[in-house]
Amino acid sequence: MLLNTSRLQQALQREGIDALVATSPENVTYTSGFYAMSQWIRRGPQAYVLTPREDCGEPAIVASTGALDLIADQGVRIRDVRRYGHFSVQRDARAGDDACGRRLLELLDREDCGDPVRALIAAIEDRGLATATLGIDEGGILPQHFDALREALPKATIRRAANVFRHVRAVKTPDEIERLKRSARIAELSIESALAIARPSVTERELAHAFHQRTIVEGAMPVLGVICSGPRSAFSSGQPGERRLVPGDIIRFDVGGRFEHYRADISRCAVLGQPTPKQRQYHAAIRAGLLHAHAVIRPGLPTADVFTQVVAVVRRSGIPHYERNHVGHGIGLDGYDAPNITPGSDEVFEEGMTLSVETPYYELGWGGLQVEDTMVVTRDGVETFMQSSSELRIV
Amino acid sequence: MLLNTSRLQQALQREGIDALVATSPENVTYTSGFYAMSQWIRRGPQAYVLTPREDCGEPAIVASTGALDLIADQGVRIRDVRRYGHFSVQRDARAGDDACGRRLLELLDREDCGDPVRALIAAIEDRGLATATLGIDEGGILPQHFDALREALPKATIRRAANVFRHVRAVKTPDEIERLKRSARIAELSIESALAIARPSVTERELAHAFHQRTIVEGAMPVLGVICSGPRSAFSSGQPGERRLVPGDIIRFDVGGRFEHYRADISRCAVLGQPTPKQRQYHAAIRAGLLHAHAVIRPGLPTADVFTQVVAVVRRSGIPHYERNHVGHGIGLDGYDAPNITPGSDEVFEEGMTLSVETPYYELGWGGLQVEDTMVVTRDGVETFMQSSSELRIV
Repeated sequence: MLLNTSRLQQALQREGIDALVATSPENVTYTSGFYAMSQWIRRGPQAYVLTPREDCGEPAIVASTGALDLIADQGVRIRDVRRYGHFSVQRDARAGDDACGRRLLELLDREDCGDPVRALIAAIEDRGLATATLGIDEGGILPQHFDALREALPKATIRRAANVFRHVRAVKTPDEIERLKRSARIAELSIESALAIARPSVTERELAHAFHQRTIVEGAMPVLGVICSGPRSAFSSGQPGERRLVPGDIIRFDVGGRFEHYRADISRCAVLGQPTPKQRQYHAAIRAGLLHAHAVIRPGLPTADVFTQVVAVVRRSGIPHYERNHVGHGIGLDGYDAPNITPGSDEVFEEGMTLSVETPYYELGWGGLQVEDTMVVTRDGVETFMQSSSELRIV
Repeated sequence: MLLNTSRLQQALQREGIDALVATSPENVTYTSGFYAMSQWIRRGPQAYVLTPREDCGEPAIVASTGALDLIADQGVRIRDVRRYGHFSVQRDARAGDDACGRRLLELLDREDCGDPVRALIAAIEDRGLATATLGIDEGGILPQHFDALREALPKATIRRAANVFRHVRAVKTPDEIERLKRSARIAELSIESALAIARPSVTERELAHAFHQRTIVEGAMPVLGVICSGPRSAFSSGQPGERRLVPGDIIRFDVGGRFEHYRADISRCAVLGQPTPKQRQYHAAIRAGLLHAHAVIRPGLPTADVFTQVVAVVRRSGIPHYERNHVGHGIGLDGYDAPNITPGSDEVFEEGMTLSVETPYYELGWGGLQVEDTMVVTRDGVETFMQSSSELRIV
């Protein structure tokens, strides 16, 4: 189960919301397990999940008729599925021969609600929630659909609720933690595959191909691939290009794919040949900051405190002028889940939060260095997901 | 140049819009060439492009400070760039040694506008457009930012304009066509790599890995990978799973990655061993429909007419009960650009439109068959991007 049911129910109580409607791909998958492919690979296709307060009825899914095969094939547990739109599928005599086929036939036989908003309204009205307080995730619903929903439910109190989902998703369930562990591991293995071909005259793009291919082989999909070398390693969002490695180059990886919809975001650096004293010293400094975060993060600590401490450690460990806007963030279905480890955050670490903690350093003209580890907050500290050393690699 | 400048300017005139604001990743890249990575791989990060009517000033980009390195590195031509947000970058003496480095320093030295909406408002006001008619792409701007924009510009007329971008993007420039050709070719090559390992007991997932790895090697990023076998080939959105191939299976590919941000979406089918008469007949029927589309599509023809004709050809060629909701769509930065080849569309083919024309057939319990070709509408017909035959493959 991906959904943290108790945290969601607590949030509904606290916020005075009777039902939440997920509309972004992340929140739809989160609340239902349903991977509505078209919504993930494009912007616009509509799929929703209605999750009422526990005394207000069962959850419901709204999906296009063409996506019902995914619901059946993925064994999605929510039974109330409302379909919309015409999609032509024929049936052979063997169509209902297995559980997946039977479910799909049953879903296809349901009434076509016409459009996603009408389907959602029917699910809301059937639960007696037409005058209730509804929290709508504004992240995926088309604005004209949001307007139509307000208009059709004039007696409901309708609020934007993407921030409620963000809060709920911050504390992970065991199933989510397993996926995130594997996702982080795949990113580590993919760095190994890239470094295995690193030598003078190899291009950044070739490193990236080796990286992403390994990600595919390990069962994940490529997403983030900042792999830059030499002075270009100072470009925080740098895309791998045709630059060829030369001895002395830093190679900076800020990378991670998506395994069973869960993101990785880790960072490691290597030097081609012997590192300079500055490369060694600066890398040791940012790594000291990261290791300090490992040592101090625990439930109850404000994230802003960790920000302050980590920056201070990097400064006194070898980069006296070190500055950052954040030293990490949550990670899950999105690459930036809650919390933010920033000076201005009022968030506090909680057990079960998964974090990508990072201490990048960018110096234009010279290069960039970065270490980033993924970890979960435990009862009294953190457990890292990393199996590789964060030391500066020499290749 | 990706942007079809003359079509955009005509659309502004016709719609009575003084300036358009791109907010979705597709429209930001389209109007500026700027690939704002974080916006593409997440939902939420804000980057905008303001494109005024030609007599209303130059275009402007709004970008987070951390994304400026991409603007410099990609050689984005728009000069008016407004940055927002704190992002710490140090500078070595060599920071301005090349054109990219000089531009980045110059961008970093600009004033921090604080947030994306303030940056956009400044660009609008500097062009004297605070009381103008503004078309805002509602696809990528956060709803609270849209609200803030309306509030800050009470004298402007503000309209949603995603549909204007959709219209403009429908007719491609030569640079776009080159990217789409290559993207389609990479999808074809990736199918070859998957079929090269197809034999009994290989899993769908293994086929998918071979497919996506080739996509990576050819320089694209994986996106769509519907690769299903046997009865599962009838699942229109089916995700590759652990099913092992057995002789007689259909293998259906509905696939395509992203090459330089441009999508592929093609389809081919194979049978493992000797096809049955029904497999041959049905495949020949859907292929006849596709070939008919190749023969008749030309500028000026309503897309709805082609829909009707293609369905009729499939019916009389061997699937008398054939039904579809569409037989294709435009393709470009999005997998579904304009036009729609549907019975209800009022769109007309125009020279320079790029299309993915398809005739899928899904029969639950039996299997699915599909052919889909990408092509561009020429002065008097179409030019296909495909180099592989759409015949049923036997492997």
